[in-house]
Amino acid sequence: MDVFEAIKGRRSVRKYKKEPVDRELVKKLLDAAHWAPSGGNIQPWLFIVIEDPKLLDVIRKVSPGYFGEAPLAILVCSNKEKAYKVGGTLGRDYLTICDCAMAVQNMLLAAYALGLGTCVVKSFSHTAVKELLAIPDGIEPELLVIVGHPDQVPKPPPKVPLSEIVYLNKYGEKFPNLEG
Amino acid sequence: MDVFEAIKGRRSVRKYKKEPVDRELVKKLLDAAHWAPSGGNIQPWLFIVIEDPKLLDVIRKVSPGYFGEAPLAILVCSNKEKAYKVGGTLGRDYLTICDCAMAVQNMLLAAYALGLGTCVVKSFSHTAVKELLAIPDGIEPELLVIVGHPDQVPKPPPKVPLSEIVYLNKYGEKFPNLEG
Repeated sequence: MDVFEAIKGRRSVRKYKKEPVDRELVKKLLDAAHWAPSGGNIQPWLFIVIEDPKLLDVIRKVSPGYFGEAPLAILVCSNKEKAYKVGGTLGRDYLTICDCAMAVQNMLLAAYALGLGTCVVKSFSHTAVKELLAIPDGIEPELLVIVGHPDQVPKPPPKVPLSEIVYLNKYGEKFPNLEG
Repeated sequence: MDVFEAIKGRRSVRKYKKEPVDRELVKKLLDAAHWAPSGGNIQPWLFIVIEDPKLLDVIRKVSPGYFGEAPLAILVCSNKEKAYKVGGTLGRDYLTICDCAMAVQNMLLAAYALGLGTCVVKSFSHTAVKELLAIPDGIEPELLVIVGHPDQVPKPPPKVPLSEIVYLNKYGEKFPNLEG
């Protein structure tokens, strides 16, 4: 699938079919994820694939943002300790979040190209998720990506037009000929 | 360009030709950026396109991470005030960073598909950049993306193999049949 088609066509899916997600597809998502850029090449990311239905059920209960019955979720974590050793506080407190978010965006686009639906969830109990997945100190859950075969794909959300959010050379200076 | 090809082929470019970047291409990058997902659809992002050579020169001087002579840069900022109003402290302090990073990843992939090189820079003086671009309180620079026609494209950086960073259902549990 064309990259622009993926970028524009991807939606946050909140209704899924029960059909499981093939592990070969999951591997493609993970591969896409870890090709994201990483500040100082720290690669602070870790991925926990959750496909055990009972575990997913509990995760769902502690994640108000987990809509629908997606049969799979990938928890993207950051290795804060590693990031601190290589990148100091900027590495630990900021670059980890950026790197993981970029890895997630790769996953979302890859999933869409493979016919899968995804939704990024930040609204989950960190404490509960850490305990449920036995995540040690120094590793922090960043974003939960739920994955499945879409049952319903929402329309694009309303978008702030570019003309309101793009400036040229200075804050407030109009960038010419933008739509909207 | 195929989305997987873009994800895997994109590199962080640090040597650029002097040739300017056509504004029509810049608009495509911005369009790609603002199709990123956004927690609660807050869309906290703002983009300042910097193409004035004198201004770029000064920005480069306060940005130790700005390599090469890229003829254009896009500063991705977050509207912290807007994010706080809609998403509280999680929105202001976390989702803004994620959303902007995802928007940046879209830009990087779009740029690569258009034959452009990019590099994400976090190492810049926030105070200096805010003053130079007249960025008001409540708006924060997040990431600087330098853009140009690549003069030299580096080899892929060494990657931690997936087998070391992917787990199944629990931290530390092996996900079967991963390469590496």
